[in-house]
Amino acid sequence: MTRHDGRLADQLRPISVQRGFTRHAEGSYLYSSGNTIVLCTASIEPRVPPWLEGKGKGWVTAEYNMLPGSTRPRKPRDRGAKIDGRTTEIQRLIGRSLRAIVDLTALGEQMITVDCDVLQADGGTRTASITGAYLALHDAIESLRQQDLLPNADAAPIIDSVAAVSVGLVDGVALLDLDYQEDLVAAVDMNVVMTGKGRFVEVQGTGEEATFSEDELHALLGLARGGIKSLSELQQHELSR
Amino acid sequence: MTRHDGRLADQLRPISVQRGFTRHAEGSYLYSSGNTIVLCTASIEPRVPPWLEGKGKGWVTAEYNMLPGSTRPRKPRDRGAKIDGRTTEIQRLIGRSLRAIVDLTALGEQMITVDCDVLQADGGTRTASITGAYLALHDAIESLRQQDLLPNADAAPIIDSVAAVSVGLVDGVALLDLDYQEDLVAAVDMNVVMTGKGRFVEVQGTGEEATFSEDELHALLGLARGGIKSLSELQQHELSR
Amino acid sequence: MTRHDGRLADQLRPISVQRGFTRHAEGSYLYSSGNTIVLCTASIEPRVPPWLEGKGKGWVTAEYNMLPGSTRPRKPRDRGAKIDGRTTEIQRLIGRSLRAIVDLTALGEQMITVDCDVLQADGGTRTASITGAYLALHDAIESLRQQDLLPNADAAPIIDSVAAVSVGLVDGVALLDLDYQEDLVAAVDMNVVMTGKGRFVEVQGTGEEATFSEDELHALLGLARGGIKSLSELQQHELSR
Amino acid sequence: MTRHDGRLADQLRPISVQRGFTRHAEGSYLYSSGNTIVLCTASIEPRVPPWLEGKGKGWVTAEYNMLPGSTRPRKPRDRGAKIDGRTTEIQRLIGRSLRAIVDLTALGEQMITVDCDVLQADGGTRTASITGAYLALHDAIESLRQQDLLPNADAAPIIDSVAAVSVGLVDGVALLDLDYQEDLVAAVDMNVVMTGKGRFVEVQGTGEEATFSEDELHALLGLARGGIKSLSELQQHELSR
Amino acid sequence: MTRHDGRLADQLRPISVQRGFTRHAEGSYLYSSGNTIVLCTASIEPRVPPWLEGKGKGWVTAEYNMLPGSTRPRKPRDRGAKIDGRTTEIQRLIGRSLRAIVDLTALGEQMITVDCDVLQADGGTRTASITGAYLALHDAIESLRQQDLLPNADAAPIIDSVAAVSVGLVDGVALLDLDYQEDLVAAVDMNVVMTGKGRFVEVQGTGEEATFSEDELHALLGLARGGIKSLSELQQHELSR
Amino acid sequence: MTRHDGRLADQLRPISVQRGFTRHAEGSYLYSSGNTIVLCTASIEPRVPPWLEGKGKGWVTAEYNMLPGSTRPRKPRDRGAKIDGRTTEIQRLIGRSLRAIVDLTALGEQMITVDCDVLQADGGTRTASITGAYLALHDAIESLRQQDLLPNADAAPIIDSVAAVSVGLVDGVALLDLDYQEDLVAAVDMNVVMTGKGRFVEVQGTGEEATFSEDELHALLGLARGGIKSLSELQQHELSR
Repeated sequence: MTRHDGRLADQLRPISVQRGFTRHAEGSYLYSSGNTIVLCTASIEPRVPPWLEGKGKGWVTAEYNMLPGSTRPRKPRDRGAKIDGRTTEIQRLIGRSLRAIVDLTALGEQMITVDCDVLQADGGTRTASITGAYLALHDAIESLRQQDLLPNADAAPIIDSVAAVSVGLVDGVALLDLDYQEDLVAAVDMNVVMTGKGRFVEVQGTGEEATFSEDELHALLGLARGGIKSLSELQQHELSR
Repeated sequence: MTRHDGRLADQLRPISVQRGFTRHAEGSYLYSSGNTIVLCTASIEPRVPPWLEGKGKGWVTAEYNMLPGSTRPRKPRDRGAKIDGRTTEIQRLIGRSLRAIVDLTALGEQMITVDCDVLQADGGTRTASITGAYLALHDAIESLRQQDLLPNADAAPIIDSVAAVSVGLVDGVALLDLDYQEDLVAAVDMNVVMTGKGRFVEVQGTGEEATFSEDELHALLGLARGGIKSLSELQQHELSR
Repeated sequence: MTRHDGRLADQLRPISVQRGFTRHAEGSYLYSSGNTIVLCTASIEPRVPPWLEGKGKGWVTAEYNMLPGSTRPRKPRDRGAKIDGRTTEIQRLIGRSLRAIVDLTALGEQMITVDCDVLQADGGTRTASITGAYLALHDAIESLRQQDLLPNADAAPIIDSVAAVSVGLVDGVALLDLDYQEDLVAAVDMNVVMTGKGRFVEVQGTGEEATFSEDELHALLGLARGGIKSLSELQQHELSR
Repeated sequence: MTRHDGRLADQLRPISVQRGFTRHAEGSYLYSSGNTIVLCTASIEPRVPPWLEGKGKGWVTAEYNMLPGSTRPRKPRDRGAKIDGRTTEIQRLIGRSLRAIVDLTALGEQMITVDCDVLQADGGTRTASITGAYLALHDAIESLRQQDLLPNADAAPIIDSVAAVSVGLVDGVALLDLDYQEDLVAAVDMNVVMTGKGRFVEVQGTGEEATFSEDELHALLGLARGGIKSLSELQQHELSR
Repeated sequence: MTRHDGRLADQLRPISVQRGFTRHAEGSYLYSSGNTIVLCTASIEPRVPPWLEGKGKGWVTAEYNMLPGSTRPRKPRDRGAKIDGRTTEIQRLIGRSLRAIVDLTALGEQMITVDCDVLQADGGTRTASITGAYLALHDAIESLRQQDLLPNADAAPIIDSVAAVSVGLVDGVALLDLDYQEDLVAAVDMNVVMTGKGRFVEVQGTGEEATFSEDELHALLGLARGGIKSLSELQQHELSR
Repeated sequence: MTRHDGRLADQLRPISVQRGFTRHAEGSYLYSSGNTIVLCTASIEPRVPPWLEGKGKGWVTAEYNMLPGSTRPRKPRDRGAKIDGRTTEIQRLIGRSLRAIVDLTALGEQMITVDCDVLQADGGTRTASITGAYLALHDAIESLRQQDLLPNADAAPIIDSVAAVSVGLVDGVALLDLDYQEDLVAAVDMNVVMTGKGRFVEVQGTGEEATFSEDELHALLGLARGGIKSLSELQQHELSR
């Protein structure tokens, strides 16, 4: 089977990363995976949500949004009373993924919000958001360290890295990193979030009007594990520059 | 390790099912799993959502809600502009799970909404909702058949059964069917939806501020598979009475 | 004139009461009047609304809701920005009715919310809600007394009982306790709320595109008085078990 | 007992009526009862609500609002998501009162909206709104007749007049037409809507944290009957000028 | 060129002013410019917005609204989630215009809200609102002085007067004070706000699907200057009575 | 007087323009003016708003938004019921500015939405949005021409170019193109929108708690004229590449 863009079944799309794309947020990356482009900014605020006040812990949260011009046809802006269920799900997923690799106590009573705004969508926007959000979060926490704003100079709030990738079944074949065209025809769609050390954070496999066997589940998890290993190395490389 | 209610690690809570609990909806079950009680009603409407009109297919959707008195302290009613992200996620999950075992074309241009209203909550409300919703959906479709309202008398809109259960890691031990008290301390929480024929519909494993290994993932999936087998048999038994 | 279900003009529908239907709320009743079924739960919170703070008084309030599956066709869920005017009217009525028989000072600075969720609707849901809500409120206050959470052990926050019934003019005949089918064709619809001691709390008589004479008003009030006497005795009986 | 403004127990406040106060709406009255001032405008639209389309009937509805400057302290404007329960109740009452005296079939497929905007509030705003709204509605229907826009030139859409007044128990004494100061201390508050021919449209008696006897109910109804008789004559007089 | 109502190009519509139209707000004017009628009330509250607390300054703000019956056809009431963009723009403009002539420090920590409710609309409602709002604001501040509620008895919170007028290009001719009929066909519409001392507060010139030259801009500004001079004198005269 | 960034009083910030920044929208520009960065995308839809249907005309509209990470501190996302008044004003201004230079009839019955999403804010975001939006609009209309989707191949929907700039009074000195730091301390702030042919589209001069003289108005208008001339030439140059 040949993929429409010539990739192998276990091949990621080309990644490009632009550090410091904007300057007000403490961390800011323009992250592209193929034709999916996400602006990930991490902003620090010297407060925590009300339910965390006085507990000596910080908080990391995320918001996700697709710009109207990121799709064709144009996607109406998510304004007004009705928030999109898909948007809510995705931003909760990003937030959980980041918190899984942060020691919130070592962060101290401050809050980091990572905004993932999709400038161009071609499938995999949620996994690109997680992978890019980790980079932005890293830089924001680094800026705290450099300004001596962490409660303990020796402690490391970041205890692992995190990245994500989608896998899916298309015509019965397990494929890595689906783009929009592949996503449309996939019978099963799975998003996997893993740390750099190879531990799972989230596994979300879904058949829309379809089901999958245990063997298919294992094939998909194997593909994902390989893809995330590459993404973790790329993150490592980018941050060490 | 002993569970606080004396169950074994791989033991479900006691299930009770009351068919025809109310009479206006075409399917109506009061479904209890331990102290979790959900009213599942399936209502038929002779229309489909706008985006499905004229395609000769039906639709199955779900709504989930917790009554204010279902928890202590009382849960404020989900009214007004801000819909709860958790509620949205759960009702989308229930809907997808049901659609995975329905042949929407065999249903014809009609819509079934399954409402899952939690009367009492003690953990596992989303999985109890799915397991009970299948029963209500079954009766609603049966009532269509009996009234000759299916497009093809020979076709079977229901192609499999579906049930769900939660599993989780508590103090490093994999447990089946967590109640609220166990859920609170679980490091990893996983919801698995499977059909009666043993195929996966959804796998959602989540570590909140925690991660899990491949071995742990497999242990959890094994437990879930066993629990769902029992639930499927119970459903079968209930519907054959 | 014969009523469609064989009742006499001054006859109530059969009542059934299930105490302790759920366990988290301090008072919980499944209350049925004919085919109308309401779940009434009374939940205690150790606070009062902002405008009552520091005044040494408690508060009793109510919320009313119809579950989607309680009617045929299904009633869309009351979510989002636009709250139904009818719902607002009814829950304000229930709240006022309960407060009329409670000594809020003897309750102390705590708040009881009675939730009336209609599981099945067949007319008279607001009056069933009031009659059932009184029972749930009673148990909640009793639980406060048993836990010694009332400011004065000798004072009695509940100073009377309260119940409600509908009456109406159908084809010029005054009928007690209208069901849905009768309600639809009634020219005048009146809801009466009275205490066990026979004093009025509310009288709401309404002609939708119709009017009524003074004689008709008196006939309706007489019927209501009789019906509420029976309901009060039933409440007394239920609580003394 | 002397009332604070010197009125007798059964005496109305002075009424003033200014016809044609504005010119765009087909009926427009500035209606004052003591210090309560309401602008009532009746606007015609050549359509009916969706659920009435094609039935050959018209519709009459009302909206009620208090201007921010109508009270001291200023009342925040009723904008945004949360509509005031009291506002909803009142405008539904006004609408029902008007429809009780209109033959909607004789009106034809058109809709009249009567807006009651309170410019200054001193108690009795809902009853003043009903009494003034009738006048505005009358003129709007008259303008339809003059422009030959009624389906049947001989039929009379208005079949009676309608007016309203409040009565209440203050220190155990029944008083007619309460102003704000009296309303605040009334144990029981009752609004009565009657037609010019002396038939009831609505009776709404409410005890907030209080109850009332059958004798008190009759005394209040008697007072209301007298007050509405005077208001009906005043309306008649005004419209015949 | 003759204007449809016989006015000269540089002639204002007739103004009428009724002081103390209502009594609860500290300043209250019924202000008419031709057929445009606005009720302007200024209400004092002994607090400031959160962001001004503790700064020793007061605040002046405005709200603008058109009553439903003020236009033909009836304008739907501005309720619910979606606030009209035009309304927002206008009330921000009125607020800024008033603050330009008030010394907020001399006002002390109190807030004045000026409500401009349009009872009848015939063009120029925003400029009539500003001109009338100044009068109401003046009386509210005067009432503070008389009750000795200003922080410094010698200081004058009002440092100038303010008034506004519209000008526009109709068929290439610059006209003063457009009414609705002229507004509809104007290629360019400009609102000018000026103080009694002849200084600009706001200049807002807009071509909807049209543009204008520098010469036209100057002609319009000249007309506006003349009109505002007359309005300022009228305000002066009114307040000195 | 020296400006903090060394510019002369009549000097624009450096402009940078990146054409085709994203690929789904028919026109897409990353437009930067100093540290203000706006993504302007123009999307075509084959429909018009309901009130324009069947009139043979097209429509051009705009939406404006600031991304949360575009400012420090982070700007909360504009979600939920309350839309920001400033946002509404700005996007209406952008829409009017674009429509002033488009022949809507030559566009045919289609709609172009220009989205201006501010990625980084440093003052002048609304004027940068207008200047960049023109470029995106141009490319979208060009793509219509190339696909032969204009009703008349010879007609030119774009009849002029449009650009905008801010000017203001800082310490009594008129400055061109204020950045955020200058904007904060400006007594008067004016936004001017002009066409490439030198005609005004909008003039919006505002003193927040300040006023300005006729001379100052003229000085500001002169500066703006010069700045817009340069911007128009830059647009011309960019589009001719």
